[in-house]
Amino acid sequence: MSTSQKLQRFLDLADLTREEVLELLALAARLERHPEPRALAGRILGLLFFNPSLRTLASFQAAMTRLGGSSFVISPGQGTWQLETRRGVVMDGAAAEHIREGIPVLASYCDALGIRAFAQGTDLAHDLAETTFNDMAALVDKPLINMESAVNHPCQALADWKTLDELAIPQRGRFVLSWVWHPRALPLAVPAAALHMAALRGMDVTVLRPEGFALPAAIMDRARQAATLSGGSVRETADRADALNGTQVLYAKEWGATEAYGDAAEDARLRQGLRDWCVREGWFKHAAPDCRVMHCLPVRRNTAIADEVLDGPRSAVQREAYNRLPAQMAVLHALLSS
Amino acid sequence: MSTSQKLQRFLDLADLTREEVLELLALAARLERHPEPRALAGRILGLLFFNPSLRTLASFQAAMTRLGGSSFVISPGQGTWQLETRRGVVMDGAAAEHIREGIPVLASYCDALGIRAFAQGTDLAHDLAETTFNDMAALVDKPLINMESAVNHPCQALADWKTLDELAIPQRGRFVLSWVWHPRALPLAVPAAALHMAALRGMDVTVLRPEGFALPAAIMDRARQAATLSGGSVRETADRADALNGTQVLYAKEWGATEAYGDAAEDARLRQGLRDWCVREGWFKHAAPDCRVMHCLPVRRNTAIADEVLDGPRSAVQREAYNRLPAQMAVLHALLSS
Amino acid sequence: MSTSQKLQRFLDLADLTREEVLELLALAARLERHPEPRALAGRILGLLFFNPSLRTLASFQAAMTRLGGSSFVISPGQGTWQLETRRGVVMDGAAAEHIREGIPVLASYCDALGIRAFAQGTDLAHDLAETTFNDMAALVDKPLINMESAVNHPCQALADWKTLDELAIPQRGRFVLSWVWHPRALPLAVPAAALHMAALRGMDVTVLRPEGFALPAAIMDRARQAATLSGGSVRETADRADALNGTQVLYAKEWGATEAYGDAAEDARLRQGLRDWCVREGWFKHAAPDCRVMHCLPVRRNTAIADEVLDGPRSAVQREAYNRLPAQMAVLHALLSS
Repeated sequence: MSTSQKLQRFLDLADLTREEVLELLALAARLERHPEPRALAGRILGLLFFNPSLRTLASFQAAMTRLGGSSFVISPGQGTWQLETRRGVVMDGAAAEHIREGIPVLASYCDALGIRAFAQGTDLAHDLAETTFNDMAALVDKPLINMESAVNHPCQALADWKTLDELAIPQRGRFVLSWVWHPRALPLAVPAAALHMAALRGMDVTVLRPEGFALPAAIMDRARQAATLSGGSVRETADRADALNGTQVLYAKEWGATEAYGDAAEDARLRQGLRDWCVREGWFKHAAPDCRVMHCLPVRRNTAIADEVLDGPRSAVQREAYNRLPAQMAVLHALLSS
Repeated sequence: MSTSQKLQRFLDLADLTREEVLELLALAARLERHPEPRALAGRILGLLFFNPSLRTLASFQAAMTRLGGSSFVISPGQGTWQLETRRGVVMDGAAAEHIREGIPVLASYCDALGIRAFAQGTDLAHDLAETTFNDMAALVDKPLINMESAVNHPCQALADWKTLDELAIPQRGRFVLSWVWHPRALPLAVPAAALHMAALRGMDVTVLRPEGFALPAAIMDRARQAATLSGGSVRETADRADALNGTQVLYAKEWGATEAYGDAAEDARLRQGLRDWCVREGWFKHAAPDCRVMHCLPVRRNTAIADEVLDGPRSAVQREAYNRLPAQMAVLHALLSS
Repeated sequence: MSTSQKLQRFLDLADLTREEVLELLALAARLERHPEPRALAGRILGLLFFNPSLRTLASFQAAMTRLGGSSFVISPGQGTWQLETRRGVVMDGAAAEHIREGIPVLASYCDALGIRAFAQGTDLAHDLAETTFNDMAALVDKPLINMESAVNHPCQALADWKTLDELAIPQRGRFVLSWVWHPRALPLAVPAAALHMAALRGMDVTVLRPEGFALPAAIMDRARQAATLSGGSVRETADRADALNGTQVLYAKEWGATEAYGDAAEDARLRQGLRDWCVREGWFKHAAPDCRVMHCLPVRRNTAIADEVLDGPRSAVQREAYNRLPAQMAVLHALLSS
């Protein structure tokens, strides 16, 4: 990431050292202060969405425009047929095209490609290995951006780190990643990315979640390794009062029950009786006085976080979302500027 | 709107004086004669569509390009999840995000935002108060454009005024807004906007509609006030021969029965037997010889207007649609040029 | 196509002489070697898709960007209502707008329009006459591009010709267009366009297809006329061994049974027992040693072409797809550059 070292791909914050992340954040801040409206003139970003999007869809297009470039959007199933991802399959079902053709073709029309893949959601090992995203990434010979995969979301993590800096949360501050309620199981991408980001930043991180919703050991272990390198720590608990005591950040996120991965009925049984896992003002009695609330959005009001919190002074969710723009401008600049 | 007064928002033609509208139209004409391909260089327009669109979708993108800017499009439910609009709701249904998050976030990625909202279609008072659009507008701290709301469509109205000028329809000319048949109730946005526009232009306006389809009193009253200021007049009738006698413009539009607002069965009952409210050449026997036909489009051929009229010399519908482009270029220029 | 002769429309490769095609291909190659990033500055391409797309959608947007221009996309039924195409119809069904309004309006917002129409798929004579596309084309007074119609796909054909040149396939080489299996009847656009392209290039062309799947006489006749002018030849057979013997190119494509056009049940009956019409390595025993495989994509793996072929050295499908970009840049440049 130094001026002599160009970023080739942005797939996982864990591919970067702490110093490289700080360089990207410095670049983001510089581009906010000193716009470079022609830096990527004539460059094209292809955006491939296998899952719906709002912030990512809008902010990547805006980021390219702010740097003088352009983009196109492909959403299989929305004006484009479905793309098959399984290897070796006899394609006599719904999908008209395989990623083995579709992805290299799209890559050949642009200078960089962003892919939003998806969690398969049935086989945890398959998703933890990022099998689907890695199959796609192997097909791309251009700069590539992970716009969210089965268990990762590095653009969100970078924007979140920027937000923590802007909120003046100390490097060694206390950060709670809390499970919150949702009607159904959601993927592990954001909790895994936020946990790793906070650990790599050097924070004292607590994962707060009800029984049954512990994050997979592989995700916890990776975060602990990052914490060790950065001087932070990672622990987990189901005790809300203990977790929130003195915390400076509550990062709320919905996710599915690891031990019932892909089992919707068992997941639903496990989340019964957990509707009080909706962040309310009362949660902050023993937190740091100016404890902030973060969430990647979209958030369901009054199921995951109450109106009183989202509309109150603790909420940093708008800033997080806005920071997707400068964070991604930095990534695009590092990948594509000549 | 004078050079020293910049437009902040374009939400309702009624927010502008007659003179300010004329300045916008002069700007539109100037941009047609003297293109300014770099006026909005680097500027981004966000386009948020809660309802489908063809002209608005294409013409706003084209308008930004013609002025050197760019745009992105978000259509909740089309590659993006649904956005909840109700206040204080417990979000455990289909919508994944609330406008209270989604709209400020989108606004933070662009320099101006256009919103196409929708009529709730069940509670007339709610729609007449523009509750949904106003809730959204209150969340935007950037230049904002109403791309159609429950009872307004100022971009269409501005393009229609431009069209009347180009057709050399006198300021004090006779203008008939006529209800036409459609298989179901359509919103009041265009009839309300067209009526107000013609009144503000100073025309002698007649609203022609069958019994049961009178426009709401609030809409009629607002138009009468505009007419008073501009030297025009507003009346209504169910007598087609009387209305069309000597008219210079027939503006055709479909809308729902005010007295059955939100009651599809009663609305259907009221429109039974009204299929002869399809504009045909025979309607113009006693109109001015060169009486023109306007419609905002989309129009259903041979239900609302017959082929013989749409394909004949009276039709101004293509020009109206084209005029969306220069009219919106003027709005964007007034909102965004530095 | 010479500097004094500007292209007005790009609707059918048959509208061009062999020399004019060669000039377009030379322009494509020149734009690859010597980019012209401002050639179409400020120009707008409207893209209207009645059928889904991946390559066409992405490559036309990329092509405009590479030349400094811009584009907008309209996909009826995807954020836009359906457009009616039938003449004289009473529009009380699903479609809210007729092409007679929609298409001229879109054309008025841009400098050139691309239309992807569709095969009606029930009346062969109707589709062979290009009734739907021609009805639309008659409504456009701007440069127009056929992005695929009932029985044509000139952009694909131009990219395919470029690919053949790059693969150093001799002008008078042997070219087999082979029917391959698909779960249902697909349109005749690509087989008709590929056949005509190879004939116009001057190749010795064999159409290989099972009984019942002969191409319509009108398509075969047109190709024979082109072959006569260019020194090539056109024949057809159901004998795979005979067809493939010594061939240098196998162009695989799925299509419906001409004699059961629009009759899904009879078409399904005819394709029973034909699942061995999936291109496998064994097909090439007596072909030229370096025989290449082409397909326009999307392709269903292991039903139309086996993994072993698509992933092997014979496959030229990626290059064909990539060539859509420079081929279309040449078309846009010829249509729009001043």
